[in-house]
Amino acid sequence: MVTFQEISPADFFYRNRDIAGFTNPSRAIFVSIRELVENSLDSADQMSVPPEVYVRLTEEDASTTTESGNGVYRLLIMDNGSGIAARHIPSAFGQVLFGSNYKLKQARGTFGLGGTMAILYGQITTHKPVLVKSSTGGSKVYEFKMMIDIQRNRPLILDRKTRRNKENWRGTIVEYSLEGDYYRAMSKILEYLKQTALLTPYADIKFVDPKGRLYMFNRVTTKMPPPPTETLTHPYGVDVETLQRIIRVTESRNLLDFMRKHFHRVGQGTSLSFLDFAGFIRTPDPKRLKPEAVARLVETNNKSKKFRKFFGRITEEQIKVGLKKAKSQDMIAFLKSIFPNVDRTIILRLLASSGLVRTKNPKKLKPPEIVKLVRMMKQYTDFLPPDASCLSPLGEDLLRAGILKELKPEFIAVSQRKPSTYAGHPFIVETAIAYGGDIPKKDDIVVYRFANKIPLLYDEASDVSIRVIRSINWRRYKVASGMPIAILVHLCSTKVPYKTVGKEFIADRPEVKVEILNGIREVARRLQTFLAKREHVAKEKKRLSVFAKYLPKIAQFSTDLAGKTEAPDIELLLKSVRKYETEGK
Amino acid sequence: MVTFQEISPADFFYRNRDIAGFTNPSRAIFVSIRELVENSLDSADQMSVPPEVYVRLTEEDASTTTESGNGVYRLLIMDNGSGIAARHIPSAFGQVLFGSNYKLKQARGTFGLGGTMAILYGQITTHKPVLVKSSTGGSKVYEFKMMIDIQRNRPLILDRKTRRNKENWRGTIVEYSLEGDYYRAMSKILEYLKQTALLTPYADIKFVDPKGRLYMFNRVTTKMPPPPTETLTHPYGVDVETLQRIIRVTESRNLLDFMRKHFHRVGQGTSLSFLDFAGFIRTPDPKRLKPEAVARLVETNNKSKKFRKFFGRITEEQIKVGLKKAKSQDMIAFLKSIFPNVDRTIILRLLASSGLVRTKNPKKLKPPEIVKLVRMMKQYTDFLPPDASCLSPLGEDLLRAGILKELKPEFIAVSQRKPSTYAGHPFIVETAIAYGGDIPKKDDIVVYRFANKIPLLYDEASDVSIRVIRSINWRRYKVASGMPIAILVHLCSTKVPYKTVGKEFIADRPEVKVEILNGIREVARRLQTFLAKREHVAKEKKRLSVFAKYLPKIAQFSTDLAGKTEAPDIELLLKSVRKYETEGK
Repeated sequence: MVTFQEISPADFFYRNRDIAGFTNPSRAIFVSIRELVENSLDSADQMSVPPEVYVRLTEEDASTTTESGNGVYRLLIMDNGSGIAARHIPSAFGQVLFGSNYKLKQARGTFGLGGTMAILYGQITTHKPVLVKSSTGGSKVYEFKMMIDIQRNRPLILDRKTRRNKENWRGTIVEYSLEGDYYRAMSKILEYLKQTALLTPYADIKFVDPKGRLYMFNRVTTKMPPPPTETLTHPYGVDVETLQRIIRVTESRNLLDFMRKHFHRVGQGTSLSFLDFAGFIRTPDPKRLKPEAVARLVETNNKSKKFRKFFGRITEEQIKVGLKKAKSQDMIAFLKSIFPNVDRTIILRLLASSGLVRTKNPKKLKPPEIVKLVRMMKQYTDFLPPDASCLSPLGEDLLRAGILKELKPEFIAVSQRKPSTYAGHPFIVETAIAYGGDIPKKDDIVVYRFANKIPLLYDEASDVSIRVIRSINWRRYKVASGMPIAILVHLCSTKVPYKTVGKEFIADRPEVKVEILNGIREVARRLQTFLAKREHVAKEKKRLSVFAKYLPKIAQFSTDLAGKTEAPDIELLLKSVRKYETEGK
Repeated sequence: MVTFQEISPADFFYRNRDIAGFTNPSRAIFVSIRELVENSLDSADQMSVPPEVYVRLTEEDASTTTESGNGVYRLLIMDNGSGIAARHIPSAFGQVLFGSNYKLKQARGTFGLGGTMAILYGQITTHKPVLVKSSTGGSKVYEFKMMIDIQRNRPLILDRKTRRNKENWRGTIVEYSLEGDYYRAMSKILEYLKQTALLTPYADIKFVDPKGRLYMFNRVTTKMPPPPTETLTHPYGVDVETLQRIIRVTESRNLLDFMRKHFHRVGQGTSLSFLDFAGFIRTPDPKRLKPEAVARLVETNNKSKKFRKFFGRITEEQIKVGLKKAKSQDMIAFLKSIFPNVDRTIILRLLASSGLVRTKNPKKLKPPEIVKLVRMMKQYTDFLPPDASCLSPLGEDLLRAGILKELKPEFIAVSQRKPSTYAGHPFIVETAIAYGGDIPKKDDIVVYRFANKIPLLYDEASDVSIRVIRSINWRRYKVASGMPIAILVHLCSTKVPYKTVGKEFIADRPEVKVEILNGIREVARRLQTFLAKREHVAKEKKRLSVFAKYLPKIAQFSTDLAGKTEAPDIELLLKSVRKYETEGK
């Protein structure tokens, strides 16, 4: 007998929490802090407020700490972000697959999972409720004490309070207990905060660890990158389900309007050309064209400079004469026969402006037509690439500032690549290379990986950036083993192609790979110039030191030989053989 | 303004289908076939019927095949498995997180995702309904035509039919259309089927590809491993949520009974000792002990040989005298004071048998007590390890048969490790090593990875088996680069620690790693013996060939020298120097 069962998404992730990154007590405490810090940063970013995040981890009861190092901790996270409306607080923290980030917009969080999973983990290890306080800056602060009903994926509210918000505070505080192994997770947590500070140099992050040590990551600037905005779907990223969802909500009555209104970078012209390409354009039969239509066509043309440039002045007579000999059954072919030198797209535009183009009502498309439309979107090559206004890359200045603050390198090169796209999703790659300073001298290059400003710290070997870096012949760039070199790769996208829910690493999408490769090459070339110059300078110093050593002796010898008493000034001579202005010499 | 949204689990996996393995058209077609074949095999395994699976992939409309190789295919999968009850068919194929495998039992499927995701992928690429026919062998066959409402995670039934089941057919047929890139996926699909046949040598699998080629993977045996059975939770795998769920459904009125009934390998003795360790045992105050209780205690002991062995015969007098001077407030300490040489656990048993042990009603445990009970379960070291009766490993004979059939090696060694456990989940590792035959000579050893009889073909570099194999010094086993060697690792568990929903690779759990390492070492040592013998034989052949070459000449020479005409027979001589019986010589 086979029995079936339905489980809730909370139950699914509870059963398979390895998949969300909660693999063991050390990883769990790391992931919990990470998820909540990211929620805080996202929520301040959205308000264009420089984030202030305070994280405090305290040992709840030292006696419970087991031999393996596991203990029970109390985690508190406070931010100055947007705050959450009272009615959403319970679900935002007590339900998985509930969130504010299910949009075509760049954000750290994307799955609507992390925050709730962190709290769920606390609950299943300590069975204590979570406390959430939040205010959107209005007159009230709302407080909830709650637990998660995992089997139903719903919050269970134990207590709620409302207080006056005297200081007009805005933000969110989350506090709960969890079991974990802080001491094993410590180095990863600190590394995570350090790298977060590096890529969010406009944030103030404070962390108090269980020993009471305060780690401060102070902002170096209050300048923030422009906030990410929501964008429309790009036609290259559309599938049947997406298209149907848009059709369900559209108010457009025809496809021409529909394409323009709901798709990224599709204007009137692109909409027309695409629908023509896809076979969704209908024009009247020339033989049945009514005189009013002819008049409208002629008038539209003659009134518009743009059209007259192509068609010249048209007379009604000219059209009517043509109509008599017309063989084709559609107006496009008909006009093409009269104006053989005018482009099909121009003819289409004239017809559309004259109201002679008909396209279906999207709500009346039949299933095979929907499939055809989707397939054609993928095959049409003339859509404009997505623009990156919806993305919020860090920018070269902030990137440089972050690296300078954290690594204090001798040399630094940063680069922001032009926006690109994979499967309809816009993305931007930012790369940086740094040399010297606090960078450790290792056999391997130190690599910092980021996606939407999140540091990625685990499963490095499977990540696309590491593969790209390994594929490069570094000797070409004068890079040798043991040099203090760090590379930073930052991928911004409305959809980061993570391979795991735990956001450990990025999949090998060819478009992304190429951009990363080119970005790294670009900064590597600048490093090469720096290293080459450094090498010359070193040689020069050596050469000059030889001169400096022997010239005085030669001068002295010559002076003696000439029977003079005062040697000539050799400084001028030395200066004349200098090729580079070397500092300090 | 921050807006919130709830999405269904189907919507979540639709949006993040990379996570379930549907990364691109080639991978999608591979994963679709894999998921449905695995459902079929699971369902026949459960009935202990040798599986027969028929897979047919046809190009639906060659004209739609794009330049990139993408085309629209029709996929049909038919099996002789358990069939699905009519009322469950729509949800089983039209809803994610609905399944029959949410149990502590070994199965190929575990997530309740794969089959529906395959159909969902077909729907979003072709917008056509799926057809499912199934019968559990009764008088009817049920047919459903349906689609998935992704936003609500519910099946949409378009049509249903009921037919007479004249042939008493039992099984399931699934048929639907999907876009994919078969030609890029082909080698992986064939490899997948080949490896599946290797590890399921009792299955008949037929595959007809879009060119009409028939691939047959015939069974070599009808002997099947014992079917996996469902098991109870092991105390080491319990968290607060699990415990609460069990408390919610239990009928036990006390913890002693509760532990015995709901946990794997916990009997009366273990239950008592554990609850004592955890501080959940209450015994009466000796000072207030009623005469009936004393009588019961004495009678229980004196009637039982087992107890008498420890306590000897007890008299009521003896107890009563003791009670007068009793200082302790519980019976355990009191009895210990009278019988200082008897073990605490024996005293506990006597008290329990006499009805003098009280434990709480599990339904009345307070939250901190639940947490304490869970924590104590993790700390108690005397629970018996999980037994593996719930697992269905292949067994050495079937493993050997499968490898012989697929690889036809010269040498083969197989090993099944003893059951072991991680985080309360039982597991068994099976390993095999094979040499020669159809195994290709490569620089690297060919590795076949399996988990619960599923071949794992992607993301090999991150898998625990590969790491283990790389860590071994193979020269110790006389293995050199370029030898035709294949290693097979099969992990069976009620919960395979996959790192991804796409089941690409297994996480690095230390307990699992050790078992894999020991399993491989075991078969590697046998390979070493074989290779050593082979080496000796080769040397011997060489030595004999030297003898065989020169002995006749020497014999001839000696004959000539002695003036005789007939040379002596040297065969006997040659035989006498042979150390090994070498074949063909």
